[in-house]
Amino acid sequence: MNKYSVAVLGATGYTGLELVRILRDHPGLVMRFATSEAEAGQPVRGTSLRYVKAADVPLAEVDIVFACLPHGESGAYSTAAHEAGVKVVDLSSDLRAGQAGAEYGIPELWRECVRGKTLVANPGCYPTGILLGLAPLIRAGLVAGGKPVMIDAASGVTGAGRTAKREYLFGEIAEDYRAYAAGNAHRHVPEIGAGLGRIAGGEAPEFVFTPHLLPVRRGILETMYVPLVAGTSVGAAVEATRSMYTGEPYIEVMGETLPSLRDVVNTNRVAIGHAPVAGVKDPLLLCVVALDNLVKGAAGQAVQNANLMLGFEETAGIGR
Amino acid sequence: MNKYSVAVLGATGYTGLELVRILRDHPGLVMRFATSEAEAGQPVRGTSLRYVKAADVPLAEVDIVFACLPHGESGAYSTAAHEAGVKVVDLSSDLRAGQAGAEYGIPELWRECVRGKTLVANPGCYPTGILLGLAPLIRAGLVAGGKPVMIDAASGVTGAGRTAKREYLFGEIAEDYRAYAAGNAHRHVPEIGAGLGRIAGGEAPEFVFTPHLLPVRRGILETMYVPLVAGTSVGAAVEATRSMYTGEPYIEVMGETLPSLRDVVNTNRVAIGHAPVAGVKDPLLLCVVALDNLVKGAAGQAVQNANLMLGFEETAGIGR
Amino acid sequence: MNKYSVAVLGATGYTGLELVRILRDHPGLVMRFATSEAEAGQPVRGTSLRYVKAADVPLAEVDIVFACLPHGESGAYSTAAHEAGVKVVDLSSDLRAGQAGAEYGIPELWRECVRGKTLVANPGCYPTGILLGLAPLIRAGLVAGGKPVMIDAASGVTGAGRTAKREYLFGEIAEDYRAYAAGNAHRHVPEIGAGLGRIAGGEAPEFVFTPHLLPVRRGILETMYVPLVAGTSVGAAVEATRSMYTGEPYIEVMGETLPSLRDVVNTNRVAIGHAPVAGVKDPLLLCVVALDNLVKGAAGQAVQNANLMLGFEETAGIGR
Amino acid sequence: MNKYSVAVLGATGYTGLELVRILRDHPGLVMRFATSEAEAGQPVRGTSLRYVKAADVPLAEVDIVFACLPHGESGAYSTAAHEAGVKVVDLSSDLRAGQAGAEYGIPELWRECVRGKTLVANPGCYPTGILLGLAPLIRAGLVAGGKPVMIDAASGVTGAGRTAKREYLFGEIAEDYRAYAAGNAHRHVPEIGAGLGRIAGGEAPEFVFTPHLLPVRRGILETMYVPLVAGTSVGAAVEATRSMYTGEPYIEVMGETLPSLRDVVNTNRVAIGHAPVAGVKDPLLLCVVALDNLVKGAAGQAVQNANLMLGFEETAGIGR
Repeated sequence: MNKYSVAVLGATGYTGLELVRILRDHPGLVMRFATSEAEAGQPVRGTSLRYVKAADVPLAEVDIVFACLPHGESGAYSTAAHEAGVKVVDLSSDLRAGQAGAEYGIPELWRECVRGKTLVANPGCYPTGILLGLAPLIRAGLVAGGKPVMIDAASGVTGAGRTAKREYLFGEIAEDYRAYAAGNAHRHVPEIGAGLGRIAGGEAPEFVFTPHLLPVRRGILETMYVPLVAGTSVGAAVEATRSMYTGEPYIEVMGETLPSLRDVVNTNRVAIGHAPVAGVKDPLLLCVVALDNLVKGAAGQAVQNANLMLGFEETAGIGR
Repeated sequence: MNKYSVAVLGATGYTGLELVRILRDHPGLVMRFATSEAEAGQPVRGTSLRYVKAADVPLAEVDIVFACLPHGESGAYSTAAHEAGVKVVDLSSDLRAGQAGAEYGIPELWRECVRGKTLVANPGCYPTGILLGLAPLIRAGLVAGGKPVMIDAASGVTGAGRTAKREYLFGEIAEDYRAYAAGNAHRHVPEIGAGLGRIAGGEAPEFVFTPHLLPVRRGILETMYVPLVAGTSVGAAVEATRSMYTGEPYIEVMGETLPSLRDVVNTNRVAIGHAPVAGVKDPLLLCVVALDNLVKGAAGQAVQNANLMLGFEETAGIGR
Repeated sequence: MNKYSVAVLGATGYTGLELVRILRDHPGLVMRFATSEAEAGQPVRGTSLRYVKAADVPLAEVDIVFACLPHGESGAYSTAAHEAGVKVVDLSSDLRAGQAGAEYGIPELWRECVRGKTLVANPGCYPTGILLGLAPLIRAGLVAGGKPVMIDAASGVTGAGRTAKREYLFGEIAEDYRAYAAGNAHRHVPEIGAGLGRIAGGEAPEFVFTPHLLPVRRGILETMYVPLVAGTSVGAAVEATRSMYTGEPYIEVMGETLPSLRDVVNTNRVAIGHAPVAGVKDPLLLCVVALDNLVKGAAGQAVQNANLMLGFEETAGIGR
Repeated sequence: MNKYSVAVLGATGYTGLELVRILRDHPGLVMRFATSEAEAGQPVRGTSLRYVKAADVPLAEVDIVFACLPHGESGAYSTAAHEAGVKVVDLSSDLRAGQAGAEYGIPELWRECVRGKTLVANPGCYPTGILLGLAPLIRAGLVAGGKPVMIDAASGVTGAGRTAKREYLFGEIAEDYRAYAAGNAHRHVPEIGAGLGRIAGGEAPEFVFTPHLLPVRRGILETMYVPLVAGTSVGAAVEATRSMYTGEPYIEVMGETLPSLRDVVNTNRVAIGHAPVAGVKDPLLLCVVALDNLVKGAAGQAVQNANLMLGFEETAGIGR
């Protein structure tokens, strides 16, 4: 098997740490450089490398970069690296609207667009779950127009990054739970809208996105209230989902069982369940999606994309 | 001040333990009996009492009973005790539909109905928050008809009681999060509907209630998506809420700041916040409510009701 | 009752927040000033005050200061305030060795030394539990010389303060547990040694102190392995402890039951239990102590000391 | 590679679940049967099997059994299966004293005794860490006689099993911490003593074992206070440890850095760190050991033993 040299940019954040962990088992990707501005010179746990500064990575020796730098910095670095001839998966939000020609990489939705590409924008954790949950319903024409899909989401704290901020101290988060960036104020809202529009092949359905902060390290659960076209049963929704994801290694369609974080944490899986809603006039469906924000929501999907870019088997190194 | 003799039925459950804690500081209520079928004969921590079996409480020596027995048993006991001439606050769901003439006790909504009564059904934890959050909006005529209010709720695990069940083991709950009894299947749904109908003075607005289980011990957060009548601003919703609850010791109207569990845990307070929703055609309001399921959602409100029944100051013994 | 004007210095740290909470219920202490360098001008939750900077507190209007500034700053401020004629409880470690004439305030051990004093150094959280646990055994002559007492301690994270540091992020602390400052390297070691020496009336017994960081917000548990003089039974240790603490409102002697955090969190209590050790040649006792690091380990004991300084009942405002 | 048919007895406990997870990736072990008395007939998540009752496993179709039945039941089943010609790893404590000729399986200590055996008793989680931490020190003659080693241990709750008991409910464990079975009363004490004696080749050093219950799901940390022979430095202890474990895939000798749960959870690794102790007359060493109670403390080590029994590479299927 071909071996490719990898650089992980921003390797001491939670996403970077997860990438380093996944890459250790990859048959064709060899991490050669891991960057950290603060820990440059320190050893990289579990490897024989030492962290270097991002500016000191010799791009000529690198085949593919995973860029996990802060939003705002990552895109510029990725664009430059790509122009220097290196393949890039950018995990920030900087290129997700297609900047610099980046492809938006959710393999289960747009696999053939990713295959063989050289610059991929890795999706956000919340959008990944939302788009994978709603795509089968939208494509099957089951979602009623004119009414918003309510998306009530909850995420573990690693989604907020590893920078020291008082609001993410253990003493603040433990035993607490709260909404934040409510009312469509979250920075993932445009990405969700664009993704839904692309799925719909036109105008996206209206939606309201309310993220909450869970006192857990990892995992996202998204409870979505989906208005259905008249006459649609929950069974039809389950069937559309099962049918679209047949053979997908990372999608678990649970039918009328609802997923929990436990079903997906530490894996690259997205678990999707559905439930009917009683007592309302207009038909409504609950669609609940769970994923690990650091794996399928970040590092795992990034490797999945890299595998498609480089011609590896899509699951190489990722495990179940 | 008059002193009344109290019996706490089911004193080793989480609600019972909280009642015992609150009663220790009450100036007019003296706990004389605390029951436990399993721990009968054992000392009651922090008191000089020993647990007795429920059947062994001499009702003739009791002025008021707090019944925290399991749903299904509690109502029968309460009804019998009430017929024997004892005042009763029943904390189960058995009498909340008005069985045996029980009054439904949310003081901030129906204070005068509770005052001086002798049999009160203490509300459920989820309904308490929902009704207190929506009442000002419904009474002010701000809620648009014909569309459901989505109620996405999350509760700490003590809400599920203290009976040993595998699904509530630490090993199952920690690091997890999941929906349960979704799609209006939760046993609080009829209670919510009846309460909303009473507030509306007729037909209740449609609603969808989805509870989730949080990996915390205490606290409920309810994120409600409220369709507004055209032309209604968030400011109007805040104003209606603030105006209705002026002077209420246990309601904290936070305006456009959203509450978190931290704001209310270990207190009898309900905190209410509002947020606008951008990017949707029909006006929509986020109304987020937080309370402690064991205090305002159970034992604290029970004492608040008892205070009204017995003529004490409403806040006696409860603290802030 | 006399009313005294209080300033809380450093009111937005965890200790400061706890003081503000306790003072709200105090019958004779009125918080007039609460300081925060970062939040100056912002409202103090649950009060009508706004934070001011420490330098802007008009000491002439203050009767007593609780100084919770960072170690290194607090002592200088406290000394200056005391010289300006204000009574001071300093909660940092700066004055605990008696600097500036400060009295070391553990009421249950040295109550009469604190009564009426004007400058008191409030003890550290770990030393408070250790000294209260070992004092009865040392005073009764039960501790064998020549062998160290092993003190294995575990604390909730709020003990590390509220400053934003990566190592105290939720993502770092949750699901983790580790020793730190092991091998008598913790800054509380001299304070423990001095306290033990004072109790022993001479040379302190040797000890080894190993703190650990628990993934909980509050609470300290200290498991101490105490070498006993030959012929000493556990019963004698329990009896010495019970006898010394008879009538103490905040000491719970549990006998041969071992305490847990749950027994003390959110209270000013110290719970002490003992257990025999089988299978060792030289007699050994387990002495386990639990307390809330923010209450008896900080803010609660500070108010207890203030009550003694000002002539209030020692329990005023503190609750059980 | 040879393929062997596996039965997992007691597959719905925490240890059984972990075994099922590990076996899914094993190149030579194929799980053919998974038992559960309560869930017989239900599907085994992530496989095409259904649970059967233990009595219904056709032993003639099985090459190797992993028995994770409750203590007391497991040994009898294992002995019978072994007599029927099946290879067995018993994960209970029933056979750890060598009953029925079972070999006690810690590969890093007694690898050659396990290799090719047909009946192996898998060690307890606490003893595994203690024996691996102390063995290098004992073998190198660094441990002083006549004084006990104090072993202060803390374990995540999954160590207590998955049976529904009130004391292990989330509402009881969260935010709490406590010692249990203190003073050498824990059922692992004889196993620890026997293991230490075998390492010492004679009389075991005295020890005191105090387990505590951590509010985490997984992981054990053992803080050991080891009396050293005069003139022994910490460096010598580190060196003895490093030297003994050179090349061991699952032992991480951290030198004078102390391990935390984070270093080992979800892996088969044991991390060992040392620290000097200042301020005591007789030389003392801190030896801190961390491992995952469900992996190296149970299922991971069981597969390691099975690999030795069957002639696979020792790390097959276990990962790092």
